[in-house]
Amino acid sequence: MTVYNFAAGPATLPDPVIKQIQEELPSLDGTGMGILEISHRSSLFDNIINTAEQDLRDLMHIPDNYHILFFQGGGTGQFAAAPLNLATNHKRIALLDSGHWATRAGDEAANLGVQVDVLASTKDDHYQELPQMPNPISNKDYDYLHITTNNTIEGTAYHQLPEHGNVTLVGDLSSNFLAEEYKVTDFGLIFAGVQKNVGPAGVTIAIIRDDLVKPVEHIPSILNYNLFVKKNSMFNTPPVFAIYASGLVLKWLKQQGGIAEIERINRQKSALLYDFLDDSKLFSNHIKKTDRSLTNIPFTTGDADLDKQVIQATTDAGLMNLKGHRSVGGLRASLYNAMPLAGVQALVDFLHNFERQH
Amino acid sequence: MTVYNFAAGPATLPDPVIKQIQEELPSLDGTGMGILEISHRSSLFDNIINTAEQDLRDLMHIPDNYHILFFQGGGTGQFAAAPLNLATNHKRIALLDSGHWATRAGDEAANLGVQVDVLASTKDDHYQELPQMPNPISNKDYDYLHITTNNTIEGTAYHQLPEHGNVTLVGDLSSNFLAEEYKVTDFGLIFAGVQKNVGPAGVTIAIIRDDLVKPVEHIPSILNYNLFVKKNSMFNTPPVFAIYASGLVLKWLKQQGGIAEIERINRQKSALLYDFLDDSKLFSNHIKKTDRSLTNIPFTTGDADLDKQVIQATTDAGLMNLKGHRSVGGLRASLYNAMPLAGVQALVDFLHNFERQH
Repeated sequence: MTVYNFAAGPATLPDPVIKQIQEELPSLDGTGMGILEISHRSSLFDNIINTAEQDLRDLMHIPDNYHILFFQGGGTGQFAAAPLNLATNHKRIALLDSGHWATRAGDEAANLGVQVDVLASTKDDHYQELPQMPNPISNKDYDYLHITTNNTIEGTAYHQLPEHGNVTLVGDLSSNFLAEEYKVTDFGLIFAGVQKNVGPAGVTIAIIRDDLVKPVEHIPSILNYNLFVKKNSMFNTPPVFAIYASGLVLKWLKQQGGIAEIERINRQKSALLYDFLDDSKLFSNHIKKTDRSLTNIPFTTGDADLDKQVIQATTDAGLMNLKGHRSVGGLRASLYNAMPLAGVQALVDFLHNFERQH
Repeated sequence: MTVYNFAAGPATLPDPVIKQIQEELPSLDGTGMGILEISHRSSLFDNIINTAEQDLRDLMHIPDNYHILFFQGGGTGQFAAAPLNLATNHKRIALLDSGHWATRAGDEAANLGVQVDVLASTKDDHYQELPQMPNPISNKDYDYLHITTNNTIEGTAYHQLPEHGNVTLVGDLSSNFLAEEYKVTDFGLIFAGVQKNVGPAGVTIAIIRDDLVKPVEHIPSILNYNLFVKKNSMFNTPPVFAIYASGLVLKWLKQQGGIAEIERINRQKSALLYDFLDDSKLFSNHIKKTDRSLTNIPFTTGDADLDKQVIQATTDAGLMNLKGHRSVGGLRASLYNAMPLAGVQALVDFLHNFERQH
């Protein structure tokens, strides 16, 4: 039975990457030492981290005035790092509340003493569409505007960025990072936990414009952008394996034709499922069409018991981890870069048959 | 050629562990999904993290009133977490300056606004012996005393803990964690980056006494002990793979007979090298005998150029990563749990021959 893993993250990785990791696990480049055992100060690892950085720079067309940093601590770590490093002038940030992770980012900033102005929220609409900017904003008021480009739980995504005037834009891209094209220069800071589209959980990528990197005192070193820039992400021991594995996925993505091509495939994959859901009399997705995510698609029969039956039946058929997030219920299919079109086709075929037999 | 890796960390792992990871990388427990791809919310991973925790509890005889936590961010993360969570009463801690990593811990605490009293330092002696407590201390003055049980760079270790009166003892055990026996109940908090004796870089273990875990506000969530206790180390996505791999090493360690037995072997391994060095007319180790580390052994010919020759010759012979830390120079052999006696024997044989031919 072919197994397809629709988990929201950590998530499926490309088969050739898994195979390469497996093959070279006991000995990397004929050294007799594996990636789990080499020093982060070795030339071997220097080459790995520098190649990963360059490949990411190529893929996202990241200009030279942006630094690429590898942190530990996930998006949650960056929810703290962003205000600690950047909200130093007004100690006040703006936020568009598009769902769970935007709220979490705001809570973390507020807990660290930063004023968080929620400019708009679609909470009352169960986050089934994106909040829109109500009024122009200015850098006279805000250190930055935080947005979550893709809402993993709710299934929405900003395909066009909100107007933000001269305010620095901070984007949590975790769940559609490298899955659709964004212009890096629209952002002052981008961050993403890799465990959706890039690699195994354990490393977080931050891309930050040089003028935003300034010495900041009295904050933990492991969240200090300036220190990480100075030390090329090796202020302390980095998560060697997670960076290596992410590097292999970046190479794989280049071989697939880069982000423009993977976005085309992701649009094809998501359209396949959305079209089915929109035609279905049993299943539906409630997200406003223009705001629909390419990578995370929640859907439901509208009947919690029946949803449970579908989840059980899909699991039995090797279509794994389709249970929706507890806050939304129903089902959710995460179609990250490594999910092949065949997997989505298998899911649609299964749901179609389930509906016919129902 | 058999390769032995004497790196100071990340470091060599047990061969059977590498083999098991390799075998089950594409599919864990017949699920069709590998450890790099499974959700941290899956029952599969619940079992992995709970088993790792129980095995560690068994190995170190950790009583029920201590929590075992898995963090990201390494020892450097804990250098911040410890003062942020524990130095809340006096905002003042005591420190024994035994070398580079003790200094780094003190600097991080000071940078976060905590007063750090260095009670004793052996800096003037190039850290070739351990600092001793000059006077009794009291919890009326200090939130805790920080010590580095094993000094990775300098090659010393506390085989007996310093007197600390009623002051909570915080131990950075990173480089001899599970390599020699300590009594957990002597400490309020133990932490260790795993990348020496336990697993691949990317997870940090903290063991904390329950009464020290209290709600603390205005600190980053990823460093918040109370949150991690509440959420069983899953406040956010944990480093799944690093925890899994560490869990396999813990199982392996149990199979070796536990810490008492591995300490016996580590004493045998280190004695083999120390005895050679003490007998040698070419090589020497300058550390005070009672303070010598079991896991990190610096040595030198006393001639920087000749040291370089030795490093090159050992590398050519498959005895890898013997270059000493830049602050100490010379050579350093790290003999962590996964380094077999045969590796140390090969090193001693090589050095013996080098000396004869010199």
